[in-house]
Amino acid sequence: MATVKLVDENTTDPRVKAVFDDIKTTRNVTRVNDFWRALATNPDHLESVWRHLKSVMRPGKLDLLTKEMIAIAVSATNGCAYCVNSHIAAAQKLGMDTQMLGELLAVVGLFNMTNKIVEGYQLQPDVLPHVES
Amino acid sequence: MATVKLVDENTTDPRVKAVFDDIKTTRNVTRVNDFWRALATNPDHLESVWRHLKSVMRPGKLDLLTKEMIAIAVSATNGCAYCVNSHIAAAQKLGMDTQMLGELLAVVGLFNMTNKIVEGYQLQPDVLPHVES
Amino acid sequence: MATVKLVDENTTDPRVKAVFDDIKTTRNVTRVNDFWRALATNPDHLESVWRHLKSVMRPGKLDLLTKEMIAIAVSATNGCAYCVNSHIAAAQKLGMDTQMLGELLAVVGLFNMTNKIVEGYQLQPDVLPHVES
Amino acid sequence: MATVKLVDENTTDPRVKAVFDDIKTTRNVTRVNDFWRALATNPDHLESVWRHLKSVMRPGKLDLLTKEMIAIAVSATNGCAYCVNSHIAAAQKLGMDTQMLGELLAVVGLFNMTNKIVEGYQLQPDVLPHVES
Amino acid sequence: MATVKLVDENTTDPRVKAVFDDIKTTRNVTRVNDFWRALATNPDHLESVWRHLKSVMRPGKLDLLTKEMIAIAVSATNGCAYCVNSHIAAAQKLGMDTQMLGELLAVVGLFNMTNKIVEGYQLQPDVLPHVES
Amino acid sequence: MATVKLVDENTTDPRVKAVFDDIKTTRNVTRVNDFWRALATNPDHLESVWRHLKSVMRPGKLDLLTKEMIAIAVSATNGCAYCVNSHIAAAQKLGMDTQMLGELLAVVGLFNMTNKIVEGYQLQPDVLPHVES
Repeated sequence: MATVKLVDENTTDPRVKAVFDDIKTTRNVTRVNDFWRALATNPDHLESVWRHLKSVMRPGKLDLLTKEMIAIAVSATNGCAYCVNSHIAAAQKLGMDTQMLGELLAVVGLFNMTNKIVEGYQLQPDVLPHVES
Repeated sequence: MATVKLVDENTTDPRVKAVFDDIKTTRNVTRVNDFWRALATNPDHLESVWRHLKSVMRPGKLDLLTKEMIAIAVSATNGCAYCVNSHIAAAQKLGMDTQMLGELLAVVGLFNMTNKIVEGYQLQPDVLPHVES
Repeated sequence: MATVKLVDENTTDPRVKAVFDDIKTTRNVTRVNDFWRALATNPDHLESVWRHLKSVMRPGKLDLLTKEMIAIAVSATNGCAYCVNSHIAAAQKLGMDTQMLGELLAVVGLFNMTNKIVEGYQLQPDVLPHVES
Repeated sequence: MATVKLVDENTTDPRVKAVFDDIKTTRNVTRVNDFWRALATNPDHLESVWRHLKSVMRPGKLDLLTKEMIAIAVSATNGCAYCVNSHIAAAQKLGMDTQMLGELLAVVGLFNMTNKIVEGYQLQPDVLPHVES
Repeated sequence: MATVKLVDENTTDPRVKAVFDDIKTTRNVTRVNDFWRALATNPDHLESVWRHLKSVMRPGKLDLLTKEMIAIAVSATNGCAYCVNSHIAAAQKLGMDTQMLGELLAVVGLFNMTNKIVEGYQLQPDVLPHVES
Repeated sequence: MATVKLVDENTTDPRVKAVFDDIKTTRNVTRVNDFWRALATNPDHLESVWRHLKSVMRPGKLDLLTKEMIAIAVSATNGCAYCVNSHIAAAQKLGMDTQMLGELLAVVGLFNMTNKIVEGYQLQPDVLPHVES
């Protein structure tokens, strides 16, 4: 059970309604996820998170499917059930199939393993990124 | 300082040398990273991790650059300095530039934020992935 | 389902009963949470955790509400459902309303985001705390 | 070493300069932290993160010192050195002394402990927050 | 609900069947856990993870019970419910009783606490492991 | 650099001195680690953490070496450098050699991997611990 009462999707609060409408239009969906309905208990936060997410989640040099797969990698590493589910659903709408998910989770698992082995052996960086001058 | 003495790159231990040679050949490099030199203190582990990594890190439905960017996402989420550095260097060799890294880290940051907001509001999955029957 | 059988609230084990009674008295409650009933399977641990918690969770320079909000921040960052729920309930008893929870989770989310961006850019401390000499 | 070349504080890029100037004005400081100089490699991200941070980090029902102490709790839980240092410095400017830091870290440590004990015993929520109807 | 359709235990896919049979034989069990049935959606991954797990989870200088208790420590620290449950069950089969689990979780809790206090105080290593020369 | 001034090992503060003396006696060492010198800035916390640690870190059904290896597993999973170093040093004093460390980190790596794969596939517990009735 959520720790707050979710704001009704048909709220008449003008600030919340404006964000909900923008979510529906931008994503071409008819309902607003619980994440946004929880955030709407704090309209300042709702507006600011939505604005930031819109800014980050548009196609750039990385396409949207790649961005959603990165979201899955982060969410699986953090163990957030709601987040894993919603980002897999979003990636599937953009074309991710079971084989791609399998490869993605294989990479996520592998590097969670090597990350922790590195911490146990306390290795210091020996390969440095190329920093453009 | 590493918590074990790294195995010399020119070791004559046949099992370790075989893996080191395979790493150099597979990656077309002339030296072996400290990660492998630390693992080599336990040759069984060295062989098994390398075999698993080779299996996962080959091109499939996801290309290698995408896989390295997922490795960066995992390593940044875990805060592993050695890992962040080496995977950024690897991704750069495969074509990732500063703009792409910026977009990648924007996505990593965003979803680490939303993951934790979701935990605070204790949201239950409301969008389920499509599971092929 | 818990991984151990919770100890009965009305246990006659004298060491466990003494802690349970102290919990009820200290917190002015009539029942003992499952956390303590699980710990009671190991009375040494029960006594020691309760003693430590009592020592930390008393008003000092930080008031109890602030301490409970910090507990929520930690629990949301760790994604512990039981903990998020119980610490939000405790903070509510001390006066936290939905607006305060919203602000708290906004801060929790924000800095989980910036923490991970910092790891991705591998920034070294450039602002050091003032250390009293 | 950072994984990107930090943008010069005296950059003439108008979008970056506008944000840097706003940071200096808002915080009444003469230099811009490395965090913002790293973000500035991606001006869209710089603008959006700064806008979001400004929105969240203003006094509300929680005062700024409380918000900075929550930032310390999150950063210590995540083990981010840059973040711990900068948020402790910020909290000190707002009045946090060594005693308060000690109490804060005592609470952070305590609930990281109980969070993990709860996960080991797999406890299900038994105290639910009050959700306003 | 799992994010993929689990592969049937009686699958006729020869690669998957070979791994499933080896799991049953190696562990002397009659059914295959959901973990392996999920991995089987990607047979390459299934084979490689099983091979790696078999290599690591055999008695060496550490016995199997110690290895399973370490698995519990990792899983509780990560907060993975499926993993905590299955590793506790495995350790119980190897002789772990409630008292041992209690001691194990006491240690897990304690060092999750001290780890985070250390991060808050930003302590640098002052006791270095002995590295064999 | 630590975020507080470490308390001098030769402090004359009676409460702190009593704990420092007890640490030296209990562990048969001549100096006090920085962890305790940082905690000593808050004597209540110092006393309570030391008392709790002494309670947990005594031989029980699990021996001290096993407990220190669990401490390494937790510290590597959390990526705490100070902690990894000090617990490896402690385990070495109790008899852990490089081979045992290698096996330990192999287990730590393996289950960090499987933990995150499980989260990605969102598996629900299918093997439940035996709970004594």
